[in-house]
Amino acid sequence: MAEFDFKSRYKLALDLLKEAGIMLREALEQPLEVSCKQDPTDLVTNLDYRVQDFLVSKLSQVFPEDTFLAEELTDQPDARSGAVWILDPIDGTNNLVAQRENFAIMLTFFRDGQPGFAFIYDVMGRVLLAGGGVLPVTCNGKAFAAPAACVQIERSLVSGNAAMLRDNTFGLADIARDSLGVRVYGSAGISFLKVLQGKLLTYASYLQPWDYAAAYVLAPALGYRFLEAQGQALRFQGKQPVFLIPAHLEDYFLEKIRGGGSHAFSGRI
Amino acid sequence: MAEFDFKSRYKLALDLLKEAGIMLREALEQPLEVSCKQDPTDLVTNLDYRVQDFLVSKLSQVFPEDTFLAEELTDQPDARSGAVWILDPIDGTNNLVAQRENFAIMLTFFRDGQPGFAFIYDVMGRVLLAGGGVLPVTCNGKAFAAPAACVQIERSLVSGNAAMLRDNTFGLADIARDSLGVRVYGSAGISFLKVLQGKLLTYASYLQPWDYAAAYVLAPALGYRFLEAQGQALRFQGKQPVFLIPAHLEDYFLEKIRGGGSHAFSGRI
Repeated sequence: MAEFDFKSRYKLALDLLKEAGIMLREALEQPLEVSCKQDPTDLVTNLDYRVQDFLVSKLSQVFPEDTFLAEELTDQPDARSGAVWILDPIDGTNNLVAQRENFAIMLTFFRDGQPGFAFIYDVMGRVLLAGGGVLPVTCNGKAFAAPAACVQIERSLVSGNAAMLRDNTFGLADIARDSLGVRVYGSAGISFLKVLQGKLLTYASYLQPWDYAAAYVLAPALGYRFLEAQGQALRFQGKQPVFLIPAHLEDYFLEKIRGGGSHAFSGRI
Repeated sequence: MAEFDFKSRYKLALDLLKEAGIMLREALEQPLEVSCKQDPTDLVTNLDYRVQDFLVSKLSQVFPEDTFLAEELTDQPDARSGAVWILDPIDGTNNLVAQRENFAIMLTFFRDGQPGFAFIYDVMGRVLLAGGGVLPVTCNGKAFAAPAACVQIERSLVSGNAAMLRDNTFGLADIARDSLGVRVYGSAGISFLKVLQGKLLTYASYLQPWDYAAAYVLAPALGYRFLEAQGQALRFQGKQPVFLIPAHLEDYFLEKIRGGGSHAFSGRI
């Protein structure tokens, strides 16, 4: 049996993402079409759909058997079997609308539930983190080693879900108090990227698979751990509470997560 | 009597700020010396002192009569008489320590209490907003017109003091609820810059003169208003609650500020 072809998929995805980045930077010179989904702050734009349609159609042309779990698609295949792409075409749509920056494209490939590779692309900041899983991690095409081991709690900043911080859910407020303070960037992708660059201690929130899959795949190769805060397996369906943390601080985080708020913690993933 | 020489001061300050930027970007390749001031999260570094000493000594050499109100100086002259420079050498020191970016140098010149000109310099983002008062506003040397008039509340993001947001002081939580959400960047300078670029609706906090002077001077020329939230005059001594807002939304903000929390609002500045 031929070896499964991760590399052709990676190479095609990388080229398509760069093309999507160029398209987005041009499109942001023009007015946006903005509409509401669930509520007035849950926005989607013509660019969310355009990026998703572009990536899904181009990848499908070359790999017609592959399936797609994407934010703006209604069909949600089981990410744990077969060749599956998980896509957030624009993570941080409200930032795109209000700031025309601070948003990310996130794309991740799994084969039978095993991490293949992932991308987090800060389009306007022009930072493209790629790899993880079966491939080495690069940042803008260069080998990338995260400064995870140098991160100190009392010299770091914390980011996460506002309600978790307010209610000390999973000890997030306790963790923030041990740190230099809280920052809020409004995009899981941008926040995870800052964690993986050593610019945030952690990012914690209730997230959908397209928000967390890329960080989950990139974390281990870079000295980070991706925790489900209730100690459950990631289901790749629906929201789950997650933390991205430096691996050398896992004991500290597990103690805080178990001690905080009203949520039980039953183990680790 | 000769006309007062704003332009030589402006030109020298601009050159010195660019030099300080180069120095900072080089210095951030090296380890920092970090110490605490009032509490464990109130940090100062060797770079705060180095930038302050550099700017104050160079400006003093050429303009020996001028006085300085600066964050890391104990002497605090009255900013309302004579030729006075107000300086925050590093605004966002915790970001500098934890992220090595997202900090600003802010420098403002007043003559007998009248705005001369100001600078907000996002050193790592390489954005230098300059002018206001008696001089035109430029951004990185080019004429700059802020998109203030295009800002819509329901398509914008809000930033401000965490306690003000929590307690709805001056209606800040009400304002945030009318917007797309809250962002927290950890630097008044970086946040004011985002407001003046149309990337935030407002930034509101309790600030010292070195935190607010530059935004106060830059605001009018760019279609913004700088409000003292209790309707008092700015004293340029001690902390005061302030808002930077788009001028065309002043009525909306005054209604929210007067209606919110437990603080009385007695008028406008």
